[in-house]
Amino acid sequence: MYELGIVKRNIVRADRAVVDQLGKFGSATVHEAMGRVGLMKPYMRPIYPGAHACGTAVTVLLQPGDNWMMHVAAEQLQPGDIVVAACTTDNSDGFFGDLLATSFRARGAVGLVIDGGCRDVKDLTAMHFPVWSRAISSKGTVKSTLGSVNIAVVCAGMSVDPGDVVLADDDGVVVVPASMAQKVAGAAAAREANEGEKRAKLAQGVLGLDMYKMRGPLEAAGLKYID
Amino acid sequence: MYELGIVKRNIVRADRAVVDQLGKFGSATVHEAMGRVGLMKPYMRPIYPGAHACGTAVTVLLQPGDNWMMHVAAEQLQPGDIVVAACTTDNSDGFFGDLLATSFRARGAVGLVIDGGCRDVKDLTAMHFPVWSRAISSKGTVKSTLGSVNIAVVCAGMSVDPGDVVLADDDGVVVVPASMAQKVAGAAAAREANEGEKRAKLAQGVLGLDMYKMRGPLEAAGLKYID
Amino acid sequence: MYELGIVKRNIVRADRAVVDQLGKFGSATVHEAMGRVGLMKPYMRPIYPGAHACGTAVTVLLQPGDNWMMHVAAEQLQPGDIVVAACTTDNSDGFFGDLLATSFRARGAVGLVIDGGCRDVKDLTAMHFPVWSRAISSKGTVKSTLGSVNIAVVCAGMSVDPGDVVLADDDGVVVVPASMAQKVAGAAAAREANEGEKRAKLAQGVLGLDMYKMRGPLEAAGLKYID
Amino acid sequence: MYELGIVKRNIVRADRAVVDQLGKFGSATVHEAMGRVGLMKPYMRPIYPGAHACGTAVTVLLQPGDNWMMHVAAEQLQPGDIVVAACTTDNSDGFFGDLLATSFRARGAVGLVIDGGCRDVKDLTAMHFPVWSRAISSKGTVKSTLGSVNIAVVCAGMSVDPGDVVLADDDGVVVVPASMAQKVAGAAAAREANEGEKRAKLAQGVLGLDMYKMRGPLEAAGLKYID
Amino acid sequence: MYELGIVKRNIVRADRAVVDQLGKFGSATVHEAMGRVGLMKPYMRPIYPGAHACGTAVTVLLQPGDNWMMHVAAEQLQPGDIVVAACTTDNSDGFFGDLLATSFRARGAVGLVIDGGCRDVKDLTAMHFPVWSRAISSKGTVKSTLGSVNIAVVCAGMSVDPGDVVLADDDGVVVVPASMAQKVAGAAAAREANEGEKRAKLAQGVLGLDMYKMRGPLEAAGLKYID
Amino acid sequence: MYELGIVKRNIVRADRAVVDQLGKFGSATVHEAMGRVGLMKPYMRPIYPGAHACGTAVTVLLQPGDNWMMHVAAEQLQPGDIVVAACTTDNSDGFFGDLLATSFRARGAVGLVIDGGCRDVKDLTAMHFPVWSRAISSKGTVKSTLGSVNIAVVCAGMSVDPGDVVLADDDGVVVVPASMAQKVAGAAAAREANEGEKRAKLAQGVLGLDMYKMRGPLEAAGLKYID
Repeated sequence: MYELGIVKRNIVRADRAVVDQLGKFGSATVHEAMGRVGLMKPYMRPIYPGAHACGTAVTVLLQPGDNWMMHVAAEQLQPGDIVVAACTTDNSDGFFGDLLATSFRARGAVGLVIDGGCRDVKDLTAMHFPVWSRAISSKGTVKSTLGSVNIAVVCAGMSVDPGDVVLADDDGVVVVPASMAQKVAGAAAAREANEGEKRAKLAQGVLGLDMYKMRGPLEAAGLKYID
Repeated sequence: MYELGIVKRNIVRADRAVVDQLGKFGSATVHEAMGRVGLMKPYMRPIYPGAHACGTAVTVLLQPGDNWMMHVAAEQLQPGDIVVAACTTDNSDGFFGDLLATSFRARGAVGLVIDGGCRDVKDLTAMHFPVWSRAISSKGTVKSTLGSVNIAVVCAGMSVDPGDVVLADDDGVVVVPASMAQKVAGAAAAREANEGEKRAKLAQGVLGLDMYKMRGPLEAAGLKYID
Repeated sequence: MYELGIVKRNIVRADRAVVDQLGKFGSATVHEAMGRVGLMKPYMRPIYPGAHACGTAVTVLLQPGDNWMMHVAAEQLQPGDIVVAACTTDNSDGFFGDLLATSFRARGAVGLVIDGGCRDVKDLTAMHFPVWSRAISSKGTVKSTLGSVNIAVVCAGMSVDPGDVVLADDDGVVVVPASMAQKVAGAAAAREANEGEKRAKLAQGVLGLDMYKMRGPLEAAGLKYID
Repeated sequence: MYELGIVKRNIVRADRAVVDQLGKFGSATVHEAMGRVGLMKPYMRPIYPGAHACGTAVTVLLQPGDNWMMHVAAEQLQPGDIVVAACTTDNSDGFFGDLLATSFRARGAVGLVIDGGCRDVKDLTAMHFPVWSRAISSKGTVKSTLGSVNIAVVCAGMSVDPGDVVLADDDGVVVVPASMAQKVAGAAAAREANEGEKRAKLAQGVLGLDMYKMRGPLEAAGLKYID
Repeated sequence: MYELGIVKRNIVRADRAVVDQLGKFGSATVHEAMGRVGLMKPYMRPIYPGAHACGTAVTVLLQPGDNWMMHVAAEQLQPGDIVVAACTTDNSDGFFGDLLATSFRARGAVGLVIDGGCRDVKDLTAMHFPVWSRAISSKGTVKSTLGSVNIAVVCAGMSVDPGDVVLADDDGVVVVPASMAQKVAGAAAAREANEGEKRAKLAQGVLGLDMYKMRGPLEAAGLKYID
Repeated sequence: MYELGIVKRNIVRADRAVVDQLGKFGSATVHEAMGRVGLMKPYMRPIYPGAHACGTAVTVLLQPGDNWMMHVAAEQLQPGDIVVAACTTDNSDGFFGDLLATSFRARGAVGLVIDGGCRDVKDLTAMHFPVWSRAISSKGTVKSTLGSVNIAVVCAGMSVDPGDVVLADDDGVVVVPASMAQKVAGAAAAREANEGEKRAKLAQGVLGLDMYKMRGPLEAAGLKYID
């Protein structure tokens, strides 16, 4: 349950070296390496093509139409962090723009994932400050009601703890619990190595049906070929 | 209330000089300068990144699946106008394509904002004719039922009078009533001047918490820092 | 009605020469040439701007969260085919990524239209493998439940028979039954020829009102001009 | 454009006798009598079947997640009023529940139309206090940011002026400008008289094709009967 | 592909006796009996709880905002028919109300399934005329543009041929091709007989795990019980 | 992060007496008593009006189109439990119907909250077995892929731990962590006592403006009354 009005200062961040390892993979690869879990909902989209970020989560719980807590979160940022902002209700207002991006970057943040709206898209694109959001909206926000910073949040359907690794790219956003980051990085590397070989075979015309030995299971399941 | 079957020929357009002033700002800045009002809903998106337009509104009320009134509107266009098209019901059909864009441009129009669908996106992009729409759709339309031109309309949740200033960019679409355009342009300029200084401070690592003097109000609201 | 667990091997593809003719037109032109029918719903969007494909449909019926049939479909592909994948329920999972694209391309496929999710967007864009989908999602899929290949499917609201011509571009996706392809190609060519002349007139400032002789019908319908 | 922080006390309400006349019709009849305009979007649904209300609009502009202005509006209510609440952004929070309903009813209000959420549905149903809303939600709201009362608002896509007649039933919500109420009431009465006769004929098996003399126009439009 | 402007008079209806057999089952049972296919999308909802209908399809293709073809369809109705109305684009207008219902009933129709809007819900409920629709809306429609009657249509994602059996209840709408109706009725009966026994066992506390012998497969799939 | 293929047998349920206390309140009251948190998203709706349930959560993680884990969950149920089912992706299939309801009830379950579809609505209503779901759908499901039972899940945007109190009614679904249940029950009781008095005052015509002493703060915020 959300406790409001709280800022947790000391959070345990995933190990930097592991974050860097994970950052070399795509979100799909890491999601598969985790056992096909960890994804936010696909309505979260990057504000520009090619956006990519991997960092340790500083979490923010926002109130609708109110971005007060974003400023509170700025102070808690450390280099390599990515801000993950949830809201107590569905809201598409423009909680974030180029001024906050300037501040977040000055503190070392590598991006923002926000289950809300974002504005100043042209400037953010020019700055190469990557944002994943549910909407783009000029709508301004007030600074009146407390949320929290660095509590566990649910963002776009996925629970995120402060310090978790968050990896985002063109395909979406995946969350890796800090405690599992090392193991997942290993699994992702193994998977990726594996993919190169598969890709080469498929490019030569080998069928997945043969490469993955699917013909037997398909027949067993009752698949029928007709002419 | 909408009166159907009406074309108003003489509308009072916002002053050209003021429109040009407003056109230098982003939609978020102008929205803030108006007191955080005037925005269309964020489902209105530009058909290509970087689209930007600012003009005086010629309004169109469409019927679903029918773009007859777009042709009627073309005749009412003057250089510097932007067409704002509403519909009597939610409809995503392709009311507008490159032929109408050619006609609108020949009449001096600077863009289109349509609470409906748009097609010929590739051609429109090549022409640099900016359109903000709720959908992209090849779906063709008929020419059978009257709507109106240059009546007050509600487009994407915002009321627009003919002659109002409409400013649209990557962040969305904002409507400035003609009677307020001068005042809003002034407020936007003041705001923007102000932003440069703020941005510099934030870039140096100054926190919004301090720059905006938020620590007191946050404490008064009950914010607690824990370790 | 869908029959599950079926792969039809011998399908009658539309004539290659006609497919190539149709491929020169946009989806809006072909849709108009068909009498304003044949479109999938506009939620189907290309994964990158400028995507374009025209081919003969190999159809796939998927089960939610399961991409087994995509591998079965790969074997049925011939050069010039486009895969059209429907699902038995609304589902946005990432049924397709760069490995399958590599396989499909090796078999000669020119693109994919999928009423589901797609992943590896960055790689697919780099490969110039065009995909139209309802969503982009990293979400992985299983290989457990039979669908079918090369049965008649409904994809994004449009029925598609194997062998039909499917043309997709920035504006959407249009389906031309194989039996009508030649006739539609002719009508599209006539329409396009016609469009060049219209465009030139409109660019010179001629109004659609006059070019299409709309003033009489508008007056008859009761349109009133006021000042 | 919305002016925030304003409460207009003296509004011109539509004539009570006309409101009562209009209240005898359904929303569809009144919408047709207006020339097929005046409807809010169909996402506005009554919280219980059979809900019906017709009154003079007291308008409220809300901020997201904030119902402060509902209390301000209560003081402006007169017997026979219906509250019409818009919001500066899409928001489904529970701005209204049984306490406010008790207050509104004590002031003589006959119902609420809110482009937001409503809660205490069971109690409101028991009270027979009719509400049309975009959502039902327990989500509570704060009282921090000013909106306005009795300014012109856009609610669910329709502009509403204070004092307008608002009629809502199972089919939706229609807004009749105060200045047109008398004329619309007359047209609605004529239409309804007309409907009884039509209904009787149709019940006897007379076809609309004949009753409305559609066969000629259909043939002229090119309709073909085949066997 | 849709051919517009066509009314097919002679359609082959599924056998009445079989329709009556199917009408005794729920939509879920029939869908399962067909092999888990045949359903329209779940956005199709009955206008009142407990609505139930089973009949032979007379199909209608509508144009957006235009209900002309509904009147054309009325003439083609025979006792026991159910009207299935599709539209060339997504549209929620109120194509159907109590007058058309009176006409349809006079012709013997048992209900309507419409991928569009419906109005006069209170009257239709009082008449016990069941309708499944995507929306409820007072929005009136014109009579200007041809669609077709008794062509194959796609309604809410499902293809329907004239004469097919359409069964609709609280759970949704299922379509049974006329040629398969007898076989499906038999399978549904077998399934339902089967269900009574299962229900009794489950009510006594027998677990599905045991009744369906799932423990082995679950263990084989790797399920682990922990404390 | 979700671990798949796990069934936790021993969970710590909230105290029965406290669950019963909480069950006397509405979801809005409990949500307020928690400090305005704990709600699932408002797309979760009861399948019949007046549905009400309060129990201890047995959680289920489903895979799309697959209800295998529902049978696994049945075995873990104890009297007073409510099943909370999440899914690894958005899916509206009919995971649950009257057979599973019979089984769940035989095990003592008081209801189901499912971020997916439900079917057999008529039977479930007749049984008075309350369900809150995101959709109603006849669509059947397979039993092929493992999820988990009694792990922490995110259901409709809210995190739920096994053993938490889940209270659902016409207004929505609220989750109370087991550890806070006693405290929340106390706060809810205090709040409700308080509400009776407020209701009486409001019914007598006292304004919220006065009862809540809002006039000062409104004036301080700048509210202006005009005539």
